[in-house]
Amino acid sequence: MSTEQRIRYSDCDPQGIVFNGNYARYWDDALTDWLEEAGFAGLELGGIGVDIVTARLEIDFKNAARFGDTLVTTPAVERFGITSMMVSVTTRRKSDDEVVAQGRLVTVFVDPEEFKPVPIPDTVREALSSTDT
Amino acid sequence: MSTEQRIRYSDCDPQGIVFNGNYARYWDDALTDWLEEAGFAGLELGGIGVDIVTARLEIDFKNAARFGDTLVTTPAVERFGITSMMVSVTTRRKSDDEVVAQGRLVTVFVDPEEFKPVPIPDTVREALSSTDT
Amino acid sequence: MSTEQRIRYSDCDPQGIVFNGNYARYWDDALTDWLEEAGFAGLELGGIGVDIVTARLEIDFKNAARFGDTLVTTPAVERFGITSMMVSVTTRRKSDDEVVAQGRLVTVFVDPEEFKPVPIPDTVREALSSTDT
Amino acid sequence: MSTEQRIRYSDCDPQGIVFNGNYARYWDDALTDWLEEAGFAGLELGGIGVDIVTARLEIDFKNAARFGDTLVTTPAVERFGITSMMVSVTTRRKSDDEVVAQGRLVTVFVDPEEFKPVPIPDTVREALSSTDT
Repeated sequence: MSTEQRIRYSDCDPQGIVFNGNYARYWDDALTDWLEEAGFAGLELGGIGVDIVTARLEIDFKNAARFGDTLVTTPAVERFGITSMMVSVTTRRKSDDEVVAQGRLVTVFVDPEEFKPVPIPDTVREALSSTDT
Repeated sequence: MSTEQRIRYSDCDPQGIVFNGNYARYWDDALTDWLEEAGFAGLELGGIGVDIVTARLEIDFKNAARFGDTLVTTPAVERFGITSMMVSVTTRRKSDDEVVAQGRLVTVFVDPEEFKPVPIPDTVREALSSTDT
Repeated sequence: MSTEQRIRYSDCDPQGIVFNGNYARYWDDALTDWLEEAGFAGLELGGIGVDIVTARLEIDFKNAARFGDTLVTTPAVERFGITSMMVSVTTRRKSDDEVVAQGRLVTVFVDPEEFKPVPIPDTVREALSSTDT
Repeated sequence: MSTEQRIRYSDCDPQGIVFNGNYARYWDDALTDWLEEAGFAGLELGGIGVDIVTARLEIDFKNAARFGDTLVTTPAVERFGITSMMVSVTTRRKSDDEVVAQGRLVTVFVDPEEFKPVPIPDTVREALSSTDT
């Protein structure tokens, strides 16, 4: 499952390229779409009473992207833990399939009140495993 | 009461100037500082049980500002209504006092649950009137 | 001509609604799409040697939009001047067609080096007039 | 050398905490301040004809920060390469000195036209080494 994202003018900096911090946003949006696709849309993952927070973010910037480019971002579960999952993410430029950014996120499942880690719900685990190809 | 704001690299676009949408953020931050200065810091205006929302924003962009510039933004009450106030805002470049952006905000006082308009609390009205010179 | 924009998680603030400053970005993106649709894609309007800057922005915030909503933003020329045009913009929530934000932009055509106003190219004037219905 | 950054309202998301992607911006700003402090202010590092790009970003999110918090971000050279440096970064909450985010950046020195790696100028190497304590 992939998300297409057009690079917008305000995403680019005086060097004319996407400001590096915007990839964190692109990836968060791709994660949202991926979870929605798997049946967990919106706040509290569509009402199953868990929320997610990002515990770690790792990005290698491989190529610059520019205003007008369209990016294709693909998240995939790399490893499930008890309360967290490691998600690998790759962003390619649509026009030439070049890798623009690559890395991983650690996503922790938490209760929505205290933000304390909770076990990954089985429904989430199963749904994301099956999209993960 | 004024707020100084340094223009950051990621605030600037490929034209090398501050992206226009960032002024809305600068002004929101200046409003926050101004309210804090008047005794109403943070969420729900420091615990007095009202919140604010922006109902209207008007900005004239007079001069471009660039990475490295420091801006000075000054809000002032232009007019109080029952549940809203019109706030005039001027942003100047610190180095040469040039007006960079000028305009106004309409700020509505609301209850924090339903976001329904409520009368401006007298304490707020008095505090902002006295800073307004 | 309209642009659909999904509201992303990071566009929303602690009130759970779109931060007001993000509408300036939504509108800038909608303007980009509208110009592209009319044949003027990307930097320097697709190579015709003029650039645009925003001289004025006016937004009335009519209804709050939230994470998960899709917005439909429609720009239209309200009036052409010699070197600038007034563009009216309306943003509606897709699900119920409610107006979320409404206002106008003044867009000035400039040369890309000095940012000095230049007459609106006839090709742009004609192309935007015909989309303007 | 440290940079203080107030968390602004629009930096926070519907969970009421700083959106993770904003730390990339905080760190970029802290790097700018650190370079400026060392004598390399602004674009092309104050006119020495080199530019910098971020090649890698690694952030561990340790604690949530909220609207009203002030953050203190401290970059330090971890290792110099020929054309790049690894910079460790720590962000603490000012009020209680808790680590909020911690990680590293890989910063590459490039020529401003082609963005091709160039050796780190000796002046930069010396200046950053001496601030690095």
